[in-house]
Amino acid sequence: MDGLMMRIPLSVPELIRHADRCHGDTEVVSRTIEGPIHRYTYREAHRRARRLARALLRRKVGRGERIGTLAWNGYRHFELYYSVSGIGAVVHTINPRLFADQLAYIVNHADDQLVFFDLSFTTLVEKLAPRCPGVAAWVAMTDAAHRPAATLPNLVCYEDLLAAEDDDYEWPDLDETSACALCYTSGTTGNPRGVLYSHRSTVLHALTTCLPDVLNLGAQSVVLPIVPMFHVNAWGLPYAAPLVGAKLVLPGAALDGKSLYALFEDEGVTHSAGVPTVWLGMIDYLKANGLRFSTFRETIIGGSACPPAMMRTLREDFGVDVKHGWGMTETSPIATAGVLKRKHAKVAEVDRTAIREKQGRPLFGVEMKIVDADGRELPHDGTRPGNVLVRGSWVATGYFRGEGGDVLASGGWFPTGDVGTVDPDQYLQITDRSKDVIKSGGEWISSIELENIAFSHPEVTEAAVIGLPHPKWDERPLLIAVRKAGSTLDRNALLAWFDGRTARWWIPDDVVFVDELPHTATGKLSKRTLRERFRDHRWPASTRTAEEAADARADQPRDMRA
Amino acid sequence: MDGLMMRIPLSVPELIRHADRCHGDTEVVSRTIEGPIHRYTYREAHRRARRLARALLRRKVGRGERIGTLAWNGYRHFELYYSVSGIGAVVHTINPRLFADQLAYIVNHADDQLVFFDLSFTTLVEKLAPRCPGVAAWVAMTDAAHRPAATLPNLVCYEDLLAAEDDDYEWPDLDETSACALCYTSGTTGNPRGVLYSHRSTVLHALTTCLPDVLNLGAQSVVLPIVPMFHVNAWGLPYAAPLVGAKLVLPGAALDGKSLYALFEDEGVTHSAGVPTVWLGMIDYLKANGLRFSTFRETIIGGSACPPAMMRTLREDFGVDVKHGWGMTETSPIATAGVLKRKHAKVAEVDRTAIREKQGRPLFGVEMKIVDADGRELPHDGTRPGNVLVRGSWVATGYFRGEGGDVLASGGWFPTGDVGTVDPDQYLQITDRSKDVIKSGGEWISSIELENIAFSHPEVTEAAVIGLPHPKWDERPLLIAVRKAGSTLDRNALLAWFDGRTARWWIPDDVVFVDELPHTATGKLSKRTLRERFRDHRWPASTRTAEEAADARADQPRDMRA
Repeated sequence: MDGLMMRIPLSVPELIRHADRCHGDTEVVSRTIEGPIHRYTYREAHRRARRLARALLRRKVGRGERIGTLAWNGYRHFELYYSVSGIGAVVHTINPRLFADQLAYIVNHADDQLVFFDLSFTTLVEKLAPRCPGVAAWVAMTDAAHRPAATLPNLVCYEDLLAAEDDDYEWPDLDETSACALCYTSGTTGNPRGVLYSHRSTVLHALTTCLPDVLNLGAQSVVLPIVPMFHVNAWGLPYAAPLVGAKLVLPGAALDGKSLYALFEDEGVTHSAGVPTVWLGMIDYLKANGLRFSTFRETIIGGSACPPAMMRTLREDFGVDVKHGWGMTETSPIATAGVLKRKHAKVAEVDRTAIREKQGRPLFGVEMKIVDADGRELPHDGTRPGNVLVRGSWVATGYFRGEGGDVLASGGWFPTGDVGTVDPDQYLQITDRSKDVIKSGGEWISSIELENIAFSHPEVTEAAVIGLPHPKWDERPLLIAVRKAGSTLDRNALLAWFDGRTARWWIPDDVVFVDELPHTATGKLSKRTLRERFRDHRWPASTRTAEEAADARADQPRDMRA
Repeated sequence: MDGLMMRIPLSVPELIRHADRCHGDTEVVSRTIEGPIHRYTYREAHRRARRLARALLRRKVGRGERIGTLAWNGYRHFELYYSVSGIGAVVHTINPRLFADQLAYIVNHADDQLVFFDLSFTTLVEKLAPRCPGVAAWVAMTDAAHRPAATLPNLVCYEDLLAAEDDDYEWPDLDETSACALCYTSGTTGNPRGVLYSHRSTVLHALTTCLPDVLNLGAQSVVLPIVPMFHVNAWGLPYAAPLVGAKLVLPGAALDGKSLYALFEDEGVTHSAGVPTVWLGMIDYLKANGLRFSTFRETIIGGSACPPAMMRTLREDFGVDVKHGWGMTETSPIATAGVLKRKHAKVAEVDRTAIREKQGRPLFGVEMKIVDADGRELPHDGTRPGNVLVRGSWVATGYFRGEGGDVLASGGWFPTGDVGTVDPDQYLQITDRSKDVIKSGGEWISSIELENIAFSHPEVTEAAVIGLPHPKWDERPLLIAVRKAGSTLDRNALLAWFDGRTARWWIPDDVVFVDELPHTATGKLSKRTLRERFRDHRWPASTRTAEEAADARADQPRDMRA
């Protein structure tokens, strides 16, 4: 028997309509590529989004067709999020940090009808255009005065498109399961694959992430997503902020500590979200200049694990409540959030810190389990690591155009490629990417735990641990570290730092110091590059003997044994 | 083009499954009818709900069939919410405060297969049973030791049902638009009508009401719904608490100030929800005993407007952040919540108070408009009152078995029967029920505003204003008031209190003092009873002359004129 309740589709245009109606004078503030700060309201954003919608329809953009964007976090990008999805087309956010080959592949694979780009990417687009003949027009996200002097076929200016239209437009009824956005994820092997979000998944994700135990957003919040809008929809914040009527601050291309700090202070930012790397720059800048935040009090950090030392610095030195989030492009992305429970009020601060350093517990709407190499479910005991599988309303069932085939495990679970433990309170702790796990003597060593220990050394600024072949143990960990300027820290001193901080048999067998570590287009440590570079690394003659290693393995906790 | 995201139905059993998985050891604490405090966890609740599900299936309860409950807020009622909806049947919560005729009508109209009842209602059920032959069994929500000595056909004890079952049961896949719960609303005329909630509406309502700007619930919260589970699902709290992992405290039948206060303190309650009347008793008890709350900090008040004086007392004397909520059985019920926006930080405290006293702004998922008597949309200017219409994911499209016919207005809007203003920030202020509006000289006088003014008098404990026929003005307001014990406040002194507090032409024409005011089964002031009782009231000889009244009408603000 059917309930007698209205069936209103969960759709992206409902978000901006709500913001217009209920928070029409709340601001959206952007640092522009052209220079000045731009500010307007949700009402004006909605009006311009409707004008853009008319411009898209005039160019015959049809339902389900893809429109590419190569853009920073700014108000025109925000308008595209709503216009494109609002007319039933698919906004395809492209990561401009990818290699030219990948970019061309993605634009062609998505079959983008139009590509909108920020002026910063004009040179990139000039190289891209000849390789993407399917793109009917390249739209510079600027006005006629700033029109780039580029040799581009079918170059159009964004403001010229809008100037030709009025805002007399009503969003059409949309099926909530239809696609609204597309984002490619660069796999470790093969071509990038597209994750196709639906209106329903996007709205449910945005709604759930506003909860007190996740982003904790309301109409008194001022949100600055540092995480880019070209990367997993800026973790949903461009949808979440209008949903609750929070003021939205978009930082453009200036993601250095100084520029960000100025924006945080000038706009009264209270909430943010970003990957660990950007916080490094911010913290350095604050420390070097003896600065403090006036209004900023809460952030979610994800993308890769936030080093415990960084989390402590933000909490203790800067009064920022840091929550760990975990997820990936295929999970929209937020699947877990690291907020304490009531019972944790009674435990020691050191234990509370340990819980916060985990990746958090699943949001309502997401289910999680861990399995061993044979797919057998493992207990949630907080010690045994397994491959992490998720299922949920904002989790992918596969990739655009069927790439990668049937990716789901039996029971419809999505295999995340992450390895972690889950404790009885359901806090996930990621110990590795499955491809980064170090398999030593048939057991798993967590490269992330070793990196965190290295990073906690006061003279280490960045660290990576990779597994390299070893004649006796299959693989053993190699630590690659970046020292602070002027540091004379040496191999033995750094290895001694691990004593008592982890199991003896986990301690890396060798250390290499480098000037910098390689990163991927999305800012993550590129272990693949490191593994290639150190493929022929020779373990030092002084490495532990088989006997020493066997002795060390006796330390191994019983429940970790094969 | 379809998005490639998992389609997991939004369903009631997902809520308890989530609580079991992620908050398995979080407590549900109940004050029982039998006497002692009962405490267990979400995990145990889920286990018992599955056992009950098996018991229901053994009794051949089919999909869509109705199961009645006549029960207070307690753990067995909580189990019924999940068991009945979880197997695809419909939990029909019955308001035991209704008249016997209404109860019999409702049970028969709903065609309840089984009726579960708390021991408090044994006598009631004995009278009801002979009039409800369709009920296959009456289940006393107790154990064999407390089995009532009642002359009931097919009397069964709840614990006996459970004792026969194990918990080896998986909730079936359910269509999210199917019905999960039924609640009758007693209309002002005619028979009660059933509102049929769907799994989807229930989950979306619960999810949205947990937001920071509504109930503000997380895993650190301890929630005590004072509002009964037989009345609009206790405003969704039995669904919201498991969704976020909040501890749930259920107060049973003891809703007096002393019992509630003890439970608030013993269980560390942080959040609550209730109608104004219960807070009256609580405040009196606290004041009389010089008590303060240790942990309680936030509540939503709705059902009827919270008198400003009560809101101020709770905020200023007891440190409780009171939020106004508004809605009705047909809106699940929460449609608006009265939380300030960021811009209100800059306005004077007196203005902030005025905003808090309004009923709040629509939640995302609910759309609102006001119309005049001819259905023409009125501006949201905060001054012009109109009939309030809503549309949203948890708003009814009609009533069970088609009672009342097609109730929606054109465009699919639900007419709430409330009258109010909406300001440019979208805060709704209810000025009346449309049937209670006083139509004086072709314009509307708000009975609620007059009641609030009367209630703000230090010697008035309760007040009602009704419109009675008047030879010249169609209707004029009559104030019916209850004085504090020992007060000698008289008619003229009370009318003088209105001077300067409202427009002159709104001031009531007469006052009657009574010992108590009549209330409906859901605790609301029964103006219908008052209108009947004072039908033949004679306006005093000293009432204003036509000339005085015409003079007073000149005060009327321009935008209120007909």
